[in-house]
Amino acid sequence: MNHIDRLKEYVREIRELEAAAALAHWDQRTYMPPRGLEARVRVVGRLERLAFERLVSPKLDRLLKEAEAGLDVGSELDRALVRYWRREHDRKKAIPPDLYQKFVETCSRAEAIWEQAKLRSDFAMFAPHLGEVVELVRKLAELLGYEEHPYDALLEEYEPGMRASRLKEVIEPLRAELVPLLQRLEEGSPPPARPVGPFPIPAQRALARKALELIGYDYSAGRLDDSVHPFTIGLGPGDVRVTNRYSEVDPFSGLFAALHEGGHALYDQGLPPELAWTGLDSGASFGVHESQSRLWENQIGRSLPFWQFFHRHLVEHLPAFEGTGPEEVWRTACEVRPSPVRVEADEVTYNLHIALRFELELELIEGRLSVERLPERWNQAMESYLGIVPPDDARGVLQDVHWSGGMFGYFPSYMLGNLYAAQLMAAAQRAIPDLWDKVASGDMRPLLSWLREEVHARGRIYPPEELIRKVTGEGLSPKPFLDYVKVKYEEVYRL
Amino acid sequence: MNHIDRLKEYVREIRELEAAAALAHWDQRTYMPPRGLEARVRVVGRLERLAFERLVSPKLDRLLKEAEAGLDVGSELDRALVRYWRREHDRKKAIPPDLYQKFVETCSRAEAIWEQAKLRSDFAMFAPHLGEVVELVRKLAELLGYEEHPYDALLEEYEPGMRASRLKEVIEPLRAELVPLLQRLEEGSPPPARPVGPFPIPAQRALARKALELIGYDYSAGRLDDSVHPFTIGLGPGDVRVTNRYSEVDPFSGLFAALHEGGHALYDQGLPPELAWTGLDSGASFGVHESQSRLWENQIGRSLPFWQFFHRHLVEHLPAFEGTGPEEVWRTACEVRPSPVRVEADEVTYNLHIALRFELELELIEGRLSVERLPERWNQAMESYLGIVPPDDARGVLQDVHWSGGMFGYFPSYMLGNLYAAQLMAAAQRAIPDLWDKVASGDMRPLLSWLREEVHARGRIYPPEELIRKVTGEGLSPKPFLDYVKVKYEEVYRL
Repeated sequence: MNHIDRLKEYVREIRELEAAAALAHWDQRTYMPPRGLEARVRVVGRLERLAFERLVSPKLDRLLKEAEAGLDVGSELDRALVRYWRREHDRKKAIPPDLYQKFVETCSRAEAIWEQAKLRSDFAMFAPHLGEVVELVRKLAELLGYEEHPYDALLEEYEPGMRASRLKEVIEPLRAELVPLLQRLEEGSPPPARPVGPFPIPAQRALARKALELIGYDYSAGRLDDSVHPFTIGLGPGDVRVTNRYSEVDPFSGLFAALHEGGHALYDQGLPPELAWTGLDSGASFGVHESQSRLWENQIGRSLPFWQFFHRHLVEHLPAFEGTGPEEVWRTACEVRPSPVRVEADEVTYNLHIALRFELELELIEGRLSVERLPERWNQAMESYLGIVPPDDARGVLQDVHWSGGMFGYFPSYMLGNLYAAQLMAAAQRAIPDLWDKVASGDMRPLLSWLREEVHARGRIYPPEELIRKVTGEGLSPKPFLDYVKVKYEEVYRL
Repeated sequence: MNHIDRLKEYVREIRELEAAAALAHWDQRTYMPPRGLEARVRVVGRLERLAFERLVSPKLDRLLKEAEAGLDVGSELDRALVRYWRREHDRKKAIPPDLYQKFVETCSRAEAIWEQAKLRSDFAMFAPHLGEVVELVRKLAELLGYEEHPYDALLEEYEPGMRASRLKEVIEPLRAELVPLLQRLEEGSPPPARPVGPFPIPAQRALARKALELIGYDYSAGRLDDSVHPFTIGLGPGDVRVTNRYSEVDPFSGLFAALHEGGHALYDQGLPPELAWTGLDSGASFGVHESQSRLWENQIGRSLPFWQFFHRHLVEHLPAFEGTGPEEVWRTACEVRPSPVRVEADEVTYNLHIALRFELELELIEGRLSVERLPERWNQAMESYLGIVPPDDARGVLQDVHWSGGMFGYFPSYMLGNLYAAQLMAAAQRAIPDLWDKVASGDMRPLLSWLREEVHARGRIYPPEELIRKVTGEGLSPKPFLDYVKVKYEEVYRL
């Protein structure tokens, strides 16, 4: 066995432990009985600790050194493999496994408290737990290390190579153009109101199933189940599962969530078998992963050609839409309305929600903002970005799970996903001249094949921005997104 | 931390890995998409190997030695804990982890081939795989060690302390009395035929749900799902799941399978929290576990008082039973008819199916019978025990999964379960004078409370026969079962 094979065999164990933990997570959010929680937290904690110990162990360092020594004769894939694990090992080896476990357990507890606090809209109940999480995250950032800013150490987990300074450069033009666009749309003619529900959940479930089938999701290698928050999770090659939730009053909510998760799932289902269990069998970054979900949800799902095809399925499953036309439904699905809640945000305001969170995360990580002052600061920022104040903390500072789970540095992935999606879609339209005709006829295969070849098949071989540059010819840029969103929404609002 | 606590902390990791593997097994048999199999086999193999390595490691030996040294001041529970792990460690330490993994993988493959072979009734396709399994099992028996017979080494896994010689002593009177009883029943008046189906599966599912609720199964700490073969699995405290299957033509099949699995589940749900993750949080043996399933399935589910209560639920869910009475349904559910298939066997013939398998297993393990000659030998034994010859190998030698999974020594547990169930039920009737009145009024709590206290609460603290002796006043005996079955079936057949 050569050095690369030995390395592969070693990391395979880490990946298999992670797959076992992923199944435990999926089950916890779908079918686990309520009294199973305590045991589950322990089992997941154990699996994650075992994987972490293997990642930071001197044995991996030795295997990497041996592999690095012979790398000049290695393939591009071998080099990517070594680069990935070297980065992961070096970043995390400074974290003592006990501290890591404490972090995992603190977040586990904080998340359970957050759920209660959100239900009761009671920030005070959550504050001490969030305080602990922030302290640990700040400590982890120091141990992980960074060049410019401690936030960069956190970003690295989700978007390798990204920097806070770079994000600021991207956010500036977004804010500068989106806020005026939002005001301009107020002058336009708003989309028609959607039919009045209730829309039966079983019919919505069938519609979501249909939508996933349409975009190419393979049910023989996955499932669609219900959960409180939609998510996609890979449990190993051949098993990529989607969950979704539905609203009786808003039929678009479940449908677009399904397309969103379906985009994530297509990425994971498209990872090449030869990358299985290597660690490269994953999206290039959270941002690139999000580009796939946003692309199918917004660029496709909220396009007129999509509705020219899909309208018949909508009417078939939800007869309340009888008498509407494709263009009408498309415009309705593209309604822009500042809302306090991120997951309900439209394409124009979504990035502003992210900019706000990024700003507040920076302040927390720098220590300039105390957890106690966070709700006040949240509401103030919400007014400045979106001109609204949340009616309560449940729909304000408590709305997202991320902070309770210690996921500082995650939110920018959503924004990067929006920007990458627009860049990729612009490139796809250049590569496939009849793309929109195909979409309008319900044929998503040309687009999916292109994404498979250009993005999915490359797994985590390239750093995210390098991948985007390879595919689109340029690195991260807000311009394609701004061009797209301005043209589209001026059309929706008939300006 | 004292030595016992250190030992507990160590074995907890083994138990948590086993819980993760149990979830993977459950998911594989309920919700896993077909293409997920290959990844799943690897993940389960990894988890089982990690648990096995920890079991046979010198570190456990050292921890056990330290705990053993201070055991004279320990509690009964401490002694049971040390005894259990010492036995497990000493038995298995002679097995190299590579051989164990080879065994697990060979069985995994053989089980997949068996499924195909059974579908096609093609023994030749399965034979080479079974041959490999038998060879490995014989090798394992030698490594595990034994005093009298290599089969004892295998039995020890399922029924600590049991011997092949002892089983022979028990089987002799069973065969001597059951074969004549079977002939006698042919002279009696057979139970009325059941109504003609089809019986809708959703209604049967609801009826099974009701039956589990009735006997005391706690859905907040478990679930009922569909699977090809019914099973019960514990994923840790607070999470004990049941699966079931239903036949459109036979409404009793799914109902009694549910009561059977429910009996297993009540045992696991009744394990005391203080035993959680210690290894004593399990049934005393497979035989004792089976006593709980057979008790609820047969002693209760196939009793007249049960039907005096449950008949109304049967009629409510399956209206084809309108016009029948409780006694009629009871007799129908107790029909005796030699069948080639074990899982369809009645109480009178069931143990004969086991005696046959035990006889053939002995011949295979001793090397007196070759895998190639097995189908011929099976049919010959079936004729001698039950007077019938299976119509094909699917309903003959290929019917059970156990051998493909390497589970030689498992089948006797079913027979022991039948015998223990009768012994326990005789004791329960002595302890609870109005037991049958309660059952007839749908109140299963007195019986469940008695089982909880006498059996469930003791987990794996005592060796199985010691437990049975504690509860019933005597060790393993076929007499209570023979007394029960003769009286009952002469009544059913009006002799």
